[in-house]
Amino acid sequence: MATQTRREPRAEPASESEDMLYEQVAQKLREQVVNGVYRQGERVPSVRRLSDQLDVSISTVIEAYRRLESQGVLEARPQSGYYVRSRLWQPPAQPEISRPHSSPTAVSVSALALKVLRATRDPEVLQLGVAVPHPDLLPTRALNNILARVARRDAGRGGGYDFPPGSPELRRQIARRALDAGCTLSPDDIVTTSGCQEALSLCLRAVAKPGDTVAIESPAFYGTLQTIEQMRLKAIEIPTCPRKGVSIEALRLALDRWKIKACLIVPNFSNPTGAVMPEERKKRLVQLLAEREVPLIEDDIYGDLGHEAPRPRAAKSYDRKGLVMLCSSFSKTLAPGYRVGWVVPGRWREQVEHLKYVSTMATATLPQLAIAEFLERGGYDHNLRKLRALFASGIERVTHAIARYFPDGTRVTQPAGGFVLWVELPKTVDSFELHRLALAKKISIAPGPLFSPKQAYRHCIRLNCALPWDERLERALVTLGRLAEELS
Amino acid sequence: MATQTRREPRAEPASESEDMLYEQVAQKLREQVVNGVYRQGERVPSVRRLSDQLDVSISTVIEAYRRLESQGVLEARPQSGYYVRSRLWQPPAQPEISRPHSSPTAVSVSALALKVLRATRDPEVLQLGVAVPHPDLLPTRALNNILARVARRDAGRGGGYDFPPGSPELRRQIARRALDAGCTLSPDDIVTTSGCQEALSLCLRAVAKPGDTVAIESPAFYGTLQTIEQMRLKAIEIPTCPRKGVSIEALRLALDRWKIKACLIVPNFSNPTGAVMPEERKKRLVQLLAEREVPLIEDDIYGDLGHEAPRPRAAKSYDRKGLVMLCSSFSKTLAPGYRVGWVVPGRWREQVEHLKYVSTMATATLPQLAIAEFLERGGYDHNLRKLRALFASGIERVTHAIARYFPDGTRVTQPAGGFVLWVELPKTVDSFELHRLALAKKISIAPGPLFSPKQAYRHCIRLNCALPWDERLERALVTLGRLAEELS
Repeated sequence: MATQTRREPRAEPASESEDMLYEQVAQKLREQVVNGVYRQGERVPSVRRLSDQLDVSISTVIEAYRRLESQGVLEARPQSGYYVRSRLWQPPAQPEISRPHSSPTAVSVSALALKVLRATRDPEVLQLGVAVPHPDLLPTRALNNILARVARRDAGRGGGYDFPPGSPELRRQIARRALDAGCTLSPDDIVTTSGCQEALSLCLRAVAKPGDTVAIESPAFYGTLQTIEQMRLKAIEIPTCPRKGVSIEALRLALDRWKIKACLIVPNFSNPTGAVMPEERKKRLVQLLAEREVPLIEDDIYGDLGHEAPRPRAAKSYDRKGLVMLCSSFSKTLAPGYRVGWVVPGRWREQVEHLKYVSTMATATLPQLAIAEFLERGGYDHNLRKLRALFASGIERVTHAIARYFPDGTRVTQPAGGFVLWVELPKTVDSFELHRLALAKKISIAPGPLFSPKQAYRHCIRLNCALPWDERLERALVTLGRLAEELS
Repeated sequence: MATQTRREPRAEPASESEDMLYEQVAQKLREQVVNGVYRQGERVPSVRRLSDQLDVSISTVIEAYRRLESQGVLEARPQSGYYVRSRLWQPPAQPEISRPHSSPTAVSVSALALKVLRATRDPEVLQLGVAVPHPDLLPTRALNNILARVARRDAGRGGGYDFPPGSPELRRQIARRALDAGCTLSPDDIVTTSGCQEALSLCLRAVAKPGDTVAIESPAFYGTLQTIEQMRLKAIEIPTCPRKGVSIEALRLALDRWKIKACLIVPNFSNPTGAVMPEERKKRLVQLLAEREVPLIEDDIYGDLGHEAPRPRAAKSYDRKGLVMLCSSFSKTLAPGYRVGWVVPGRWREQVEHLKYVSTMATATLPQLAIAEFLERGGYDHNLRKLRALFASGIERVTHAIARYFPDGTRVTQPAGGFVLWVELPKTVDSFELHRLALAKKISIAPGPLFSPKQAYRHCIRLNCALPWDERLERALVTLGRLAEELS
């Protein structure tokens, strides 16, 4: 507030234990530090001043400062006072560009992935291992209410098959929004799917057959790797910069050397690195593949989730030959459980529509109609603004916690979108061991080898930052840091 | 009513046109004929008697009888009166056991199938071509109301992923009901899927790889054939009796001769023939495959839809080795648009769960929860009783119409369950041509070659009988009969 009446001094509420009070005071200051009210190396209020400001006793402030000091948030300088610890404000270094294995290899990550996935069934486990926004952050209630209305209204239609290409209403809405990504689409260009995973799987099946080689980023999303594995394809990993995405030069060399049937890339806020390809690089990617007539399967599931405007363009927007197959879904922005995604298959429109029919016959009708109505009403942009802010702040807080609690030498990505962090721990840390130890403490993480066909990145982990920030989360990060320290 | 007061004679309502009255009288008698009140060759009431019974004028009855005569329902015998025409009451002969091509062949029905499927998007077209119950027959409204309630109640959960194996509530309900099919299952044996099509596709992918051969019935459901085609498998068609299902002896010979990786069979009310394997034959099928260690993919999607109790057992109920992979869904009994099916994968439990994740990551959450609640409340059995009666009467009426309006020499199956008829037209009829001509008249049918990898059954069609019986449907069958006559 700008104007404040002077409160009665030091009227400590008797109903709360002292311990809780210390923690409240510490939490308040911690928030201000995280929010940048006090920056690295800056002096925080004197004990006396904060005692005045917060209307608590001097001894309470002293105890709170002591706790913050032990947590590495503050440091005491003799005769001077408390300061925000400098280390906190040095964001950890980012990982270097990847140097993956340079020939096509069979993929085998399924068993690992299933293990991580199984942990998601335990509601006691803190879900840092999956890239799934916490339900409280998503507009599920509003969307479910629309679904309820649609279900009561369109009784007959809601129960009936919505054969491929899927709901015209939804495809119309998707086509409208595609302009934000620089794509001029007609509803007829689109096939709706059971989530982005089905979209990617259909595209791969449309353009590659067992034994073929596809080029992927490194590290790459493990869901994609598993589809590649299941299809008995080979994958060639292309060096990828955690800031600017896949290396065009490296891709060119790979295309020269190997018979590559498709490229599967996440140009915007890639999973796990959060890399976003600069527009010029996207354009060169599309041109390069057009020269070689190689299809680009573009996974744009995080495209709407840049932390700052404007939304980056989809690589599809540079496509002149129908070679880019654009895949996305509403799983990261509205409701993963609705299982509604889509694909713009370009030249493979017919094949993808048919494969969709063969795989699952149709996408569930009512979830599609509900999302179409949510989009039609214009709630989506408001929702995106909220999510972008939440995810940006989640990324920032977890980064700070890593800086504070993780071993020296830890590197972290600085994604400009999405909600996951890719963490390079000291080389000696075995992320499987870390996963095992963390799970015993009800914390799930995604070990690095999941993101590579050759199970590289053994000292890396991916962390989900789309969780409400609370003490449990912070404690979990403290625990992870301690475990990593012990393993390093 | 048992007791009736004598009505005033011949008080014809002035408010209705004579034409409508004739039709009403004719319709009444037609129903009695269809319901077996008067059988083939039996004399119907005299004109005078019916005029008394129905309280209409003699000239009205005469006109009604004249119409029924011209429609082939009655025949006039001089000096004797009107009789139910014999031909009507000779149900057409059933098709013979199939004699398919006897070596593994690549499958190629996709283009044809897509054509038929596309017609389903036109609401003007009468949907005799797909095996989909008309929405008015299904309990969609009640189910949608439950979905609406669940969506409002379980806000967070409904939006979240329901990772494989899928909703525990639904799996519990499925396990309970499985006892009706003779199967003792635990919820852990079950993986939920996006409809039966996904279940079948996952099973095939779990046990066979491109180039492998699978044994199928002949004729066989085209959705299955397309999955086989898409997976680049070969299919060997096993002779199949339209009453008793696949020939065990022929299957044994095929197993002796070829390396068969799996058998895909619909033991209960197969699509398109409606064949149901006698229990002894099912048992022998399971035993034969157990001896050879060959998995049986059992499609039981019509299992609940026998026209008479008791429900036939699933082949799975005879399985002692975990070799039977039982697939089904709620698409034929509750709501195809919900896309909720399941699979009991036996020994391939792990692989199928993983493939499910790779294909579509999860099944939509709320539709699963809604169906679980519908089952929990006990509405399903009541619904089944209703559907069985509706489908039995639909089958009967369409059979009668075929007897009446289709060319001589037409053969029709007499299914004891499900809601489709397999019609063998005279050899000279080209079902593609019939499909084309019928579609021009807004009638969709499924041409026989869709049901065979080699596109055999060119003179056959499959008809959907799960439509409300009305004049439009009857007119469509008259039209189809006339077109078939012209082509024969």
